[in-house]
Amino acid sequence: MTATEPVDLSVADLHPALGDPALTSMNFLNEVSERYPAAVSLAAGRPYEEFFDVAAVHRHLDTFHRHLVDERGHTPEQARRLLLQYGRTKGIVHHLVARNLAVDEGITVDPEAVVVTVGCQEAMFLVLRALRAGPADVLLAVAPTYVGLTGAARLVDLPVWPVAGGPSGVDLDDLRAQARRARAEGRRPRACYVLPDFANPSGVSIDVADRRRLLALAAEEDLLLLEDNPYGLFPVEDGPRPPTLKALDTDRRVVYLGSFAKTVLPGARVGYVVADQRVAGPDGRVGPLADQLAMIKSMVTVNTSPIAQAVIGGRLLEHGCSLVPANTRERAAYARNLRHLVAGLARRFPDRPGRPAVVRWTVPAGGFFVVVTVPFAVDDALLDRSARDYGVLWTPMAHFYDDTAPVCALRLSVSAVTPEQIDQGLDRLAALITDQLLGGRS
Amino acid sequence: MTATEPVDLSVADLHPALGDPALTSMNFLNEVSERYPAAVSLAAGRPYEEFFDVAAVHRHLDTFHRHLVDERGHTPEQARRLLLQYGRTKGIVHHLVARNLAVDEGITVDPEAVVVTVGCQEAMFLVLRALRAGPADVLLAVAPTYVGLTGAARLVDLPVWPVAGGPSGVDLDDLRAQARRARAEGRRPRACYVLPDFANPSGVSIDVADRRRLLALAAEEDLLLLEDNPYGLFPVEDGPRPPTLKALDTDRRVVYLGSFAKTVLPGARVGYVVADQRVAGPDGRVGPLADQLAMIKSMVTVNTSPIAQAVIGGRLLEHGCSLVPANTRERAAYARNLRHLVAGLARRFPDRPGRPAVVRWTVPAGGFFVVVTVPFAVDDALLDRSARDYGVLWTPMAHFYDDTAPVCALRLSVSAVTPEQIDQGLDRLAALITDQLLGGRS
Repeated sequence: MTATEPVDLSVADLHPALGDPALTSMNFLNEVSERYPAAVSLAAGRPYEEFFDVAAVHRHLDTFHRHLVDERGHTPEQARRLLLQYGRTKGIVHHLVARNLAVDEGITVDPEAVVVTVGCQEAMFLVLRALRAGPADVLLAVAPTYVGLTGAARLVDLPVWPVAGGPSGVDLDDLRAQARRARAEGRRPRACYVLPDFANPSGVSIDVADRRRLLALAAEEDLLLLEDNPYGLFPVEDGPRPPTLKALDTDRRVVYLGSFAKTVLPGARVGYVVADQRVAGPDGRVGPLADQLAMIKSMVTVNTSPIAQAVIGGRLLEHGCSLVPANTRERAAYARNLRHLVAGLARRFPDRPGRPAVVRWTVPAGGFFVVVTVPFAVDDALLDRSARDYGVLWTPMAHFYDDTAPVCALRLSVSAVTPEQIDQGLDRLAALITDQLLGGRS
Repeated sequence: MTATEPVDLSVADLHPALGDPALTSMNFLNEVSERYPAAVSLAAGRPYEEFFDVAAVHRHLDTFHRHLVDERGHTPEQARRLLLQYGRTKGIVHHLVARNLAVDEGITVDPEAVVVTVGCQEAMFLVLRALRAGPADVLLAVAPTYVGLTGAARLVDLPVWPVAGGPSGVDLDDLRAQARRARAEGRRPRACYVLPDFANPSGVSIDVADRRRLLALAAEEDLLLLEDNPYGLFPVEDGPRPPTLKALDTDRRVVYLGSFAKTVLPGARVGYVVADQRVAGPDGRVGPLADQLAMIKSMVTVNTSPIAQAVIGGRLLEHGCSLVPANTRERAAYARNLRHLVAGLARRFPDRPGRPAVVRWTVPAGGFFVVVTVPFAVDDALLDRSARDYGVLWTPMAHFYDDTAPVCALRLSVSAVTPEQIDQGLDRLAALITDQLLGGRS
């Protein structure tokens, strides 16, 4: 289409989120990578594809089907109906999700408090839609923040107030200050969104002591915590993983957002939310927040495809409901890549004894992301030049802040590349950074 | 949970839609049918299950997989990525949806104007979210209205103004009057929602002359039409089907909402929207409304499960992209049931020469639904009594009106029952109605 053809509508006639950078920035990033398909992508946060297997999808489906008949006692007709007909809004693999959380995370949840969703994104959307009751409501979120959270908040007209993340993953003093400032201004802070394990985009994790302090603070300030955990199963080092906030949660402060996109398959589009908060209805009946989320879900997607749920359910069943052993190869690949990237940065930007580092980077204990800080602002124009002239893609950290202030950092992802591509990408990135420094741009 | 346990939240703290009958009524209906599982259900609008087949799901998946490699020229790696990885927000079966619309409906659409959604419900939700730009916006909808439309509108704070349906399916004078009244009151009527073929719940179809008049009126009043068409392929009689509004649409007035729940499988949760309206962005770039809907979708569900899309895609491919021959058996079952139900009503409530009919019913030309009008108000309490004391479920028509006025009608559905169940259900319904009439309740 060209601008000379007749126009039916203007974006200004549509919901304000549609003109907003929170929604358009994702588009911009996709467009850049489509325009330069030959560029090495250290931008994509997609999971590793080498182990993807279409035959496994068929097998998972069969495994879950057999489970329905052999273990759940369904007749063939009931099993067929469960897999192919309209069904339970809260899902049909909720019992397996609950078992998975018990086995892998030591979290005990009532399966009735689980809503199986169309990816973690829908889980986020449902929670924000439920919590945004009126114009006084605000959401706190540790900054830099996952863009999917900010975008979903825009769609429900819920302002997102940043809370400093800092080196510990969350600045508790700032969280308290923001909650109090909101209340002083007549706003109602409903919750704080936090990614305690290998956060996207910062890569930072919150230590156990701070997790406990965060829960105590949430109780003091009467906040819910929205805990998002897509990367927790991918630490670099062996050893015990820290408990999730939900595992430490004794008074239903935490709404837990779960994803199977990285631990099973993005293509199933299955995630979930654990929402065990007790909600009193107008008739005095009390039920879990999950029931309210399900009521919203019934008007957004009706229910999550039971076929897609069966794929996830089958995979869970084939591994005793634990995704830790199921991800041995994936975890090794991510850890190898993360080590390779960090070592590659150190080699290309060596210490200069007695002089401050010009280029710095985080060394995450796991997950997909490394943040590189440089002495110049990193914007979309630079990304475009990087893709075109240097053949390497990455993500400007500015996309993860909900304002227009310049940010001197970029995010590198190791999840969808080989070590060879990391080397090539880093060579190109180093050339770009060197040229920027020599060119004296800031 | 009991009310004596501590409570964390009240529904009053959550989005106002959660206390609203538009969302809770669906729950009430589900609860009644769960409480009385032995009752004959003339309530459920689910498709016929007899032909459901899990093996077919595997076959469809393989068919689509082969199509990617053999016909679309994808490498095995590309095909695997398309099926299992994150993917295109607007979907991967858009070309097959466009072909299906060409073959079955004579609609020519650019595949780029199609967004594949998580069922038709998500399509509806995305359109309403896009169109609700501010508090002045209202949606017109032919009453009685599908509850999923009203519920989705509640979630985006968009008021729904009823337009009289009447015997012709839409009262064009009332539509004009409502649009003008809205403007006179400073509101902006964005669109009118209409179900031209065998509507849910009324069963009424709009004839071709009125379809053309409706399009002309929409142009005069500068309204979009949201055309929902889940039942069009299920006429009782053979012969040409009337053209859809979209097929008659020459100036992009119609946003077409499509479902595969009744024509393929509800369990895939795949629907779509055709939105070819030209939208000018803030940068002057012009693209289809579909692109704006996709931006919203990226923050609601990211993309529709490609595995689920592949199931639908495979089924389409196996039938030359036409769902008419693919639904021969289903169509025959629905037509048989509809005839059986109407004949059964006539037998149980015969004409009384010279006296007005006490019980009347619609005789739809297709679809799933018959409306029975009785000389007393039909409410939830009566449904509860019907389920408990008479063992038959149906839907009070009051649920399809967005106010609290009493309605003397109920909806019967023929889609998920056998002729024997219809007989049994009608015997029980006749007993209930007779007792109501003799008891003199109103």
